[in-house]
Amino acid sequence: MPRPSRTRRITATRSEYGEEHLRRLRLVRALIQVGRVPVTTAREVLTAIEDDSLDHHHRLGAAVRALPCGPEPDESDPATTVARSTATELLEHLEWRADLATSPAFGMLVTALTALHRLGYVCDTAHLLPYARQAEHLAVADLDLLEEFETPEEQVEAAVALTVLYEPVLLSLRRPAESEESNRRFGSGS
Amino acid sequence: MPRPSRTRRITATRSEYGEEHLRRLRLVRALIQVGRVPVTTAREVLTAIEDDSLDHHHRLGAAVRALPCGPEPDESDPATTVARSTATELLEHLEWRADLATSPAFGMLVTALTALHRLGYVCDTAHLLPYARQAEHLAVADLDLLEEFETPEEQVEAAVALTVLYEPVLLSLRRPAESEESNRRFGSGS
Repeated sequence: MPRPSRTRRITATRSEYGEEHLRRLRLVRALIQVGRVPVTTAREVLTAIEDDSLDHHHRLGAAVRALPCGPEPDESDPATTVARSTATELLEHLEWRADLATSPAFGMLVTALTALHRLGYVCDTAHLLPYARQAEHLAVADLDLLEEFETPEEQVEAAVALTVLYEPVLLSLRRPAESEESNRRFGSGS
Repeated sequence: MPRPSRTRRITATRSEYGEEHLRRLRLVRALIQVGRVPVTTAREVLTAIEDDSLDHHHRLGAAVRALPCGPEPDESDPATTVARSTATELLEHLEWRADLATSPAFGMLVTALTALHRLGYVCDTAHLLPYARQAEHLAVADLDLLEEFETPEEQVEAAVALTVLYEPVLLSLRRPAESEESNRRFGSGS
């Protein structure tokens, strides 16, 4: 339902409605350009976050859950069965309240564990727990970052953009940190 | 320089050389299939890790540094200049001994910071430090994992495979962890 009269450029003092509309456009841009979310999905996210019956937590969740999670697990691969049971066992060890098994990220975890299993790398709950604990610490940093934004709307937009944009930041810091730790353990001190 | 007589299948007791050769093949497979490293680069990595003058730390480094780091920074974009100065300032705050500025991961960091800057997200050293500290903790988990492998050769192979294969594991755990932290801060307790 297009509302052309409301999308025209506001030059002087922007009305309250104009600000909100610009933020919606920025969120759609963040979803599509940064999150590589399909246009139809971006529209569903907008509907969800405009739903007044949802609290702030569920609006943030709707936005982040819309982000793509890579290839779905290949159910014809026997390694997927092993990976799924490892992922389920990990969930039992974590005290997370949300049902991760229904989250799109669960498929991403199963796919990743399948690749490890297929290459012969043992990866059980004991191996995964340190990474889950680090994810918890990262999430604290992520939410601290979100809370720097004043309005709930800006926070929802930032949740999408920063979840995606901080992924390469984190991965680009992990490799030199590995080199640092390797030097500490195996280096000749040079 | 092909050595066909040494690549034939060894059926019964594998000789010492056979084991080493099989490990090399697995490393090449890990680099190409898992790390998406070009064949010529994989060959350079093999040369580096077969170099007896290198210690274990430098062999691990040669393997991990060969991994692709995504698109190079776009030097024609003014946002890249800002991002590079942020990345350099971050390095000055970290006590890492290695020269990160010469590492291929540095370009990956600059590219990621450029995207943040271009979308108007302020991202300075204070924002990045918590992520660098988390990367240090992750690196401890990564090296603990490596040290489960007995031989230095297996560790080099695992460094490549696990650096790459744990990336989606980590990212898939971060999103539900964010949801957990969001629920803690904003949830209605339901």
